Amino acid sequence: MNVDEAMALAVAAGERVRGTTSPNPPVGCVILDAGGRVVGEGATRPPGGAHAEVVALAAAGPAARGGTAVVTLEPCSHHGRTPPCTGALIEAGVARVVFAVADPNPQAAGGAEVLRAAGVRVEGGLSGEVVERGVLRAWLHYARTGRPHVTWKFASSLDGRVAAGDGSSRWISSPESRAEVHEFRTKVDAIVVGTGTVRTDDPRLTARTSRPGQDGVRQPLRVVVGKGDLPPGARVLDDEAETMHLRTHDPDVVLGALAARGVVDVLLEGGPTLAGAFTAAGRVDRVLAYLAPKFLGDGPQALRDAGVSTVTDAVGLVVEQVSMCGPDVRVSAVPAR
Amino acid sequence: MNVDEAMALAVAAGERVRGTTSPNPPVGCVILDAGGRVVGEGATRPPGGAHAEVVALAAAGPAARGGTAVVTLEPCSHHGRTPPCTGALIEAGVARVVFAVADPNPQAAGGAEVLRAAGVRVEGGLSGEVVERGVLRAWLHYARTGRPHVTWKFASSLDGRVAAGDGSSRWISSPESRAEVHEFRTKVDAIVVGTGTVRTDDPRLTARTSRPGQDGVRQPLRVVVGKGDLPPGARVLDDEAETMHLRTHDPDVVLGALAARGVVDVLLEGGPTLAGAFTAAGRVDRVLAYLAPKFLGDGPQALRDAGVSTVTDAVGLVVEQVSMCGPDVRVSAVPAR
Repeated sequence: MNVDEAMALAVAAGERVRGTTSPNPPVGCVILDAGGRVVGEGATRPPGGAHAEVVALAAAGPAARGGTAVVTLEPCSHHGRTPPCTGALIEAGVARVVFAVADPNPQAAGGAEVLRAAGVRVEGGLSGEVVERGVLRAWLHYARTGRPHVTWKFASSLDGRVAAGDGSSRWISSPESRAEVHEFRTKVDAIVVGTGTVRTDDPRLTARTSRPGQDGVRQPLRVVVGKGDLPPGARVLDDEAETMHLRTHDPDVVLGALAARGVVDVLLEGGPTLAGAFTAAGRVDRVLAYLAPKFLGDGPQALRDAGVSTVTDAVGLVVEQVSMCGPDVRVSAVPAR
Repeated sequence: MNVDEAMALAVAAGERVRGTTSPNPPVGCVILDAGGRVVGEGATRPPGGAHAEVVALAAAGPAARGGTAVVTLEPCSHHGRTPPCTGALIEAGVARVVFAVADPNPQAAGGAEVLRAAGVRVEGGLSGEVVERGVLRAWLHYARTGRPHVTWKFASSLDGRVAAGDGSSRWISSPESRAEVHEFRTKVDAIVVGTGTVRTDDPRLTARTSRPGQDGVRQPLRVVVGKGDLPPGARVLDDEAETMHLRTHDPDVVLGALAARGVVDVLLEGGPTLAGAFTAAGRVDRVLAYLAPKFLGDGPQALRDAGVSTVTDAVGLVVEQVSMCGPDVRVSAVPAR
């Protein structure tokens, strides 16, 4: 197997543990022996547990000697809760390390240099963009800014309504889109909504889809933002998952509280007002819009009070990807620089 | 050249005359000689002029004998303002006719049978869907229903606004999308807006893009719908193109008046109210939405009063195509059956 194929395996391994590693990154690692055979694979264990490289090296055993480690993130060189991965790689006698993205964390960075100093061939940047935009996106944002990464998801009709004139919204998007959102929920650390959404829709905010290769369904933290009380008996107060109520409207206060709890990846499913507050504060890092091929002609929009009064002041985005999700159009966009 | 390649040429020939043939269809025809060489190409001349087959046969001359005619529409067998094309093909000694779509017009249909009876090999359906959805779409709709085909075009922000909170809307969509709309205008017979749009935006409603292979810019009929008067000095009253004011709100009255003038292909660029009337009446045959990657968070939506009060009564669409137009997402959708 060549290193490109091995990197694809490493990415998939990291993808499988997304949502279980924060505040650590969901890294994947594949060990090839000197002949290019896969002899070990691993991914980051939950916090306090082994890093991906150590898991993969343990699986490979002596076969790692003279081989190649292919890993989605530059191996760390610092002592955290676990010993540095660079040491483990050197000790195992790995001859070459290929990684996708450099570690932006000043504490952990320099792993490549440490490995080179020990005589290991090191190459970075393989599948860098795939990893940067994909499995490590939220963690890299968190490592660079100190803030959790926020994906704002909404579903609207093609004429931009998130509910009909009578307030009904079940369902605007297709079963395929809703299933995808449920799977997405299993991969994030927290789901954020406003008290308005809790009062209007009384959502459970749990993931109802298990992920391939995972036992059961992992539930993200449910976060309700707003000064009002939650109605007694609201579904978010059930015991299916933990729920946090933050009595604030300030996105930075919300994100600060979440970062303090080790939350890296946030799915914002809030209504128009909360989405407006996050947008106006520049705290939406990605938009995931499910546009259903239907017209309503009445009803509320996805976004309100985003701090824009005239068209030339619009919040600029760049479309990253457009695709179909069942009958719906899925648009992924990020803020324009 | 094989017949598939010849059909692509015939489609392109028809495409070049779109907007100049109504109420006749913009047909394209290519003649291959017995050796498969292109010896003639033609497209429908303006009303009263020759049909595509006759133009192509004239170009081919004696080389058509024993050859193949490749044409986007089943050749007609009736005497209208011009003699039937079936006669011209038989007389020219064409051995084989390949067409894309059958003529739905009961008067003109039966061309294939007439040709077969004369010993010509006839095959229908080649590139049928491409032609059906593309160059002959509007005319086929008109031939089947008696009503002009209506494409409703709108441009909105990703959060579904067609203007900002202060009413400004120049420009929500990109230069690329606007250029495409101008080219689209040159291909239709009429552009329809409401009096509200004339009062608010004072648009010229002319095409400012010339089409490849055409001299100058052909201007469609400008149609303003609504009971109110047009403001004196409105740009639609200039002499760049003809303008028709229909003092009605009823889409069927509008379409009837346009059909009576030989209009086959209509571009509806109206505001939310007019779009709502057409949508509620089931008179939008295609939607072309340009979704700009930006957020406004305030301002009007593309559609109002579409006759929908609850989400389960939404007007259902099917997405035909999603693509990028510059930075914008272009969604083409048709009513769900």
